[in-house]
Amino acid sequence: MSNDLSSGRRRFLQRGAVLGAAAAGAATAARAEPLTVAPWTRTPGEPVLWHAYGQPSPFEKDVVRRSRSAAPVPGANSSMTPLQDLRGIITPTGLVFERHHAGIPLIDPAQHRLAVHGLVARPRIFTMDDLVRLPSVSRIHFLECSGNTGREWKAPGAKSVQISHGLLSCCEWTGVPLSVVLDEAGVAPDAAWVLAEGADGAAMTRSVPLAKALEDALLVYAQNGEMLRPEHGYPLRLFLPGYEGNMSIKWLRRLKLGRAPFMSREETSKYTDSLPDGSARQFTFLMDVKSVITFPAPDHKLRERGFYEISGLAWSGHGRIRRVEVSVDGGRSWREAQLQEPVLDRALVRFRLPWRWDGGPASLESRAIDEAGNVQPTPDQLVAARGVASTYHYNAIQRWRVAADGSIANARA
Amino acid sequence: MSNDLSSGRRRFLQRGAVLGAAAAGAATAARAEPLTVAPWTRTPGEPVLWHAYGQPSPFEKDVVRRSRSAAPVPGANSSMTPLQDLRGIITPTGLVFERHHAGIPLIDPAQHRLAVHGLVARPRIFTMDDLVRLPSVSRIHFLECSGNTGREWKAPGAKSVQISHGLLSCCEWTGVPLSVVLDEAGVAPDAAWVLAEGADGAAMTRSVPLAKALEDALLVYAQNGEMLRPEHGYPLRLFLPGYEGNMSIKWLRRLKLGRAPFMSREETSKYTDSLPDGSARQFTFLMDVKSVITFPAPDHKLRERGFYEISGLAWSGHGRIRRVEVSVDGGRSWREAQLQEPVLDRALVRFRLPWRWDGGPASLESRAIDEAGNVQPTPDQLVAARGVASTYHYNAIQRWRVAADGSIANARA
Repeated sequence: MSNDLSSGRRRFLQRGAVLGAAAAGAATAARAEPLTVAPWTRTPGEPVLWHAYGQPSPFEKDVVRRSRSAAPVPGANSSMTPLQDLRGIITPTGLVFERHHAGIPLIDPAQHRLAVHGLVARPRIFTMDDLVRLPSVSRIHFLECSGNTGREWKAPGAKSVQISHGLLSCCEWTGVPLSVVLDEAGVAPDAAWVLAEGADGAAMTRSVPLAKALEDALLVYAQNGEMLRPEHGYPLRLFLPGYEGNMSIKWLRRLKLGRAPFMSREETSKYTDSLPDGSARQFTFLMDVKSVITFPAPDHKLRERGFYEISGLAWSGHGRIRRVEVSVDGGRSWREAQLQEPVLDRALVRFRLPWRWDGGPASLESRAIDEAGNVQPTPDQLVAARGVASTYHYNAIQRWRVAADGSIANARA
Repeated sequence: MSNDLSSGRRRFLQRGAVLGAAAAGAATAARAEPLTVAPWTRTPGEPVLWHAYGQPSPFEKDVVRRSRSAAPVPGANSSMTPLQDLRGIITPTGLVFERHHAGIPLIDPAQHRLAVHGLVARPRIFTMDDLVRLPSVSRIHFLECSGNTGREWKAPGAKSVQISHGLLSCCEWTGVPLSVVLDEAGVAPDAAWVLAEGADGAAMTRSVPLAKALEDALLVYAQNGEMLRPEHGYPLRLFLPGYEGNMSIKWLRRLKLGRAPFMSREETSKYTDSLPDGSARQFTFLMDVKSVITFPAPDHKLRERGFYEISGLAWSGHGRIRRVEVSVDGGRSWREAQLQEPVLDRALVRFRLPWRWDGGPASLESRAIDEAGNVQPTPDQLVAARGVASTYHYNAIQRWRVAADGSIANARA
């Protein structure tokens, strides 16, 4: 075996000149550096099954969920996904955002029940054993809180993409099509809505149109391959592809079919959108087309001029993303970003664009267009349509400003 | 809000009759059961950010990686993925299998270096900061140890699908195409092979054909969205789609280009295949077409007759899976299983087939066919071609036997 670099002799190699003449033209200077054998190569490492359930490297300890601020009731708050540190489209389950209304119940799956009643021919109670025996499907979909980026309405300027856009994740979800369970119960002809209720202390409750329940709603028990985590609804949650996150009721205990929406607390006092004319929109289920650059973002600092890959995420509750455009000059010109295949229906899409930073001020933003033809609006366009009294369903273009020292800020701060 | 089931009154609903008359015909008896409000609904739960980095439910504590047996050298062993507990195709990173030759080095990414030298115009040393700035791609691919299921050659009868097939995982991998880095270094015209060396205590080393390095090899730093875990190569590993796992060198520190394979320890003393004529195959890179039923498996027990969904995984290093067939009568008849979309190139594919267990003995097996036309062989066909002196690249059909008491065993035990 060739061992010339593992020997005691030190070799000096040039470091840097990354993509110098060739591909994209970076400008890091070539440096001579001794190639040494690191201490961890000189000794045996930690044993197999160091962790029977693996954990991140200690060097990644700062890549965690964070809250915008402490809540008076610690169970009624949210925590955000560190989008600035993630790659690809899958959100590792330990970093999937949280939004709870009365904390995280720790449910014994053997004791958990799902009741299906109301306008059905055969009211039923299902155990988890019953449900996991049923025909199942797996789908990769995004999940976004309707309040994501909501602070940008009235107090724009979040200093972190984790805080501004981190109520957003994407996972592979596995469970039973809700239509299978409703078929089993026998939906009455006059049923039109389904009440979904959680087993948390808030009994979080939302009304779902029966058409959606039959079309593609899932009773999910697994997320990224394994059973749901407690904070994501263990052992059972509703999942409504493309709909605002709070409707995908966690810790699901009850489905009641009825003729009309049930006007629960969470769909009357909350999760409605105040409009400029003083009225409020209700039942705004679908998440709008949206995108954000996750690198570079205010969480980063550029060390030196040269080549960088601009990278971000795009998504739409209306279907697939068709195109993402990126501007590096404050919206004067746009280039089409590359979309990472496979581009999936109502999933996050990773987009990338090569960029050479010249060391001067720059202004970066992305604009997503979905297959239904929806175009992500500017903040001005959104405010013109919706006013500034809303909290939910903010989907405007996010601009980051790069300063000459490499620091990055929210352009609306 | 309707609260009739949350009140103190108890309601009795029928439990069971799962898929009774309708879809698939289960035979669980209907039972009357009181609907109660669980204790976790009566109190606030754990706070948001109970874990800043989330963990599985305490009720899932037995879903962990396991080794077949303790190793004399605890850093030279493997641990298997609990396939029997997983759903979909993504393996949660904490359960991705391990195979180490000298334990897990804990590497400081700021100190880690990748050297590229040998037959190149511009030898280079890259820091992690250099590498993450380069153009990146994300791919969902399986990773399988070439020793997976190897015990079934000589000592068939593993009592768990985790132990028999669990050196297998599937993740979204993100990194730099190796071709980008080789372009930067300038490959000499006479270079034909690349030596890849790890920074672990074993300096695990394999030779890779230059054509593969340029075609689709990746320098991976992220797995399922976040940075690699220590046991999977943090902060940098090679990834060779479709190739045997040991070649995707973890903790990658060095790439040397040369004219011929380097004949390292791991490709001469190990990772070769003894054939019936006494010769040995070397450089058997590609993983063959293969599948396994993960439910029901010897890790499970069927509680009662009725409807079950047979579910499993199929994969091939040659490309996409085209078809999976399932037999429930010991190979006399076969039905085509449903493949979960998207069916991706050299990724795990989840297959499913509805099945009604009549309560008698049954014999379950799956057979995968890939887009290149390769058909998974029977054990007899495999032995006829390869003899019984091999350890690696066992890909025969796996049969599970269901007994009348619902217990499940390896049919070759």
